[in-house]
Amino acid sequence: MQKIRAAIVGYGNIGHAALEALVETPDFQIAGIVRRNPADRAGIPADIPVVSSIKELERVDVAILASPTRQIEAQAKEILALGINTVDSFDIHTQIPALRKSLAAVAKEHNAVSVISAGWDPGSDSVVRTLMEAIAPKGITYTNFGPGRSMGHTVAVKAIEGVKDALSMTIPVGTGIHRRMVYVELLPGYDLATVAAAIKADPYFSSDETHVMQVDSVDALNDVGHGVNLVRKGVSGKTHNQMLEFDMKINNPALTGQVLVCVARASMRLQPGCYTMIEIPVVDLLPGDRDYWVAHLV
Amino acid sequence: MQKIRAAIVGYGNIGHAALEALVETPDFQIAGIVRRNPADRAGIPADIPVVSSIKELERVDVAILASPTRQIEAQAKEILALGINTVDSFDIHTQIPALRKSLAAVAKEHNAVSVISAGWDPGSDSVVRTLMEAIAPKGITYTNFGPGRSMGHTVAVKAIEGVKDALSMTIPVGTGIHRRMVYVELLPGYDLATVAAAIKADPYFSSDETHVMQVDSVDALNDVGHGVNLVRKGVSGKTHNQMLEFDMKINNPALTGQVLVCVARASMRLQPGCYTMIEIPVVDLLPGDRDYWVAHLV
Repeated sequence: MQKIRAAIVGYGNIGHAALEALVETPDFQIAGIVRRNPADRAGIPADIPVVSSIKELERVDVAILASPTRQIEAQAKEILALGINTVDSFDIHTQIPALRKSLAAVAKEHNAVSVISAGWDPGSDSVVRTLMEAIAPKGITYTNFGPGRSMGHTVAVKAIEGVKDALSMTIPVGTGIHRRMVYVELLPGYDLATVAAAIKADPYFSSDETHVMQVDSVDALNDVGHGVNLVRKGVSGKTHNQMLEFDMKINNPALTGQVLVCVARASMRLQPGCYTMIEIPVVDLLPGDRDYWVAHLV
Repeated sequence: MQKIRAAIVGYGNIGHAALEALVETPDFQIAGIVRRNPADRAGIPADIPVVSSIKELERVDVAILASPTRQIEAQAKEILALGINTVDSFDIHTQIPALRKSLAAVAKEHNAVSVISAGWDPGSDSVVRTLMEAIAPKGITYTNFGPGRSMGHTVAVKAIEGVKDALSMTIPVGTGIHRRMVYVELLPGYDLATVAAAIKADPYFSSDETHVMQVDSVDALNDVGHGVNLVRKGVSGKTHNQMLEFDMKINNPALTGQVLVCVARASMRLQPGCYTMIEIPVVDLLPGDRDYWVAHLV
């Protein structure tokens, strides 16, 4: 069977994790890595081409976009227009429908497939939320994140005057409510009270319980572990009190990289268009024949 | 939008639960119930036709087969041959691939769709197992059932000489291992030691830790609650120790009935053929437009 040739676009945490997942996956070949500075090959095996444009790579079936969320739309459009599938983990929940619509048009025009918002949330969590909603159609689902670092909140703290480095941890307190634990290194001449007040006034934090603590080294707290707990209590038919729960404790970039490889594979089996993970049969995330997995997993 | 017209074939616990789920579901109309003795209308609302053959019902889009597993194949073939979709919760795991192949041929010939083995296990658990396998491709998944009644084991006990009534409860002890707690009412003249020995020698019980207890009334222990705990510890990319878990505590027939209604809906959106739940996008289990659910659940 012909291997799927994948390129990785962007080489930060997620790009590195996607590379690790591809290396472990026999049905893929690595076409290359696309990054701004292709001379920077730190940590990249010598046999993998590193280029500044995807056009420089030999045949690419699918591009794994491991770039910041706000760059995804433009990048995906450019690559889809080359007839190459794209997958990403775009994570601004409210903008997913618009992205899906916009990429669907380009994908269909160029006979390509795009799978968007494929990480763990949005992503694998979305699949579980959808399944829970289906099998207990009335009720409430709570998504409880953490404990783990929130990228968005961390970036918001770093933008505040007087902050040298920061880490915002998301702590689940149940029923979808979260506490923010913020660890900051301060620049000389700034005091914690002032910085803490600015953080708590920021829209990212103003409606959550937020604690700000000064530390000597934010780097010393670095841990990419994360978690989620999805809980639904609901009604199947006329029967109340059906209890459903999904729990993960995971290395965040590693899981995201693995999910991206799964949807890259699935993209080869879909009709032209743009999809989220809830629109893809879960068996198509796995390599090889459906028959094998039906016999082993159903 | 035109409603989906569903018939229920068989009216035991699962048929009753499927009826309750259909009543609560605005996108369905109940075409009728098919059962051996159509004169028995106990508990069935007066406006629902009860007949002995599906051919007596006005237009049926999909038949929900709520019959014993061993009757499913013959029933499904007969109904698919009429061009009517079928869904079932066939639950002999080892025979699923053969059933899927056999019904696929009939379904395609008659331009119909069959969704098989759609309950909770096989069924919704299969979807979760598949997702876990995809996002952490190396590792072990344990499926721990219970506490709850095992139908197969209960039937096996009832067949043993001297047993008047019985209940076999499945108790999870972790890592996919189960304890069997068997409650029996004895016929006059039989003693517990002899009956217990016969139960423990039965292939259903011989490899599990089994305890047999005599009770005055098996009926007094009746509870259709059940549960499952799916655990996977695995590897994403090169990162070990990814921890995934799914937990349910549910009314067993109610969940099965609801899942059957979900796949009856999905059957209307699939190409002719035979499918298990892992081959169906989860969003298609839900009513209405994909766009709505992408905006609300992804």
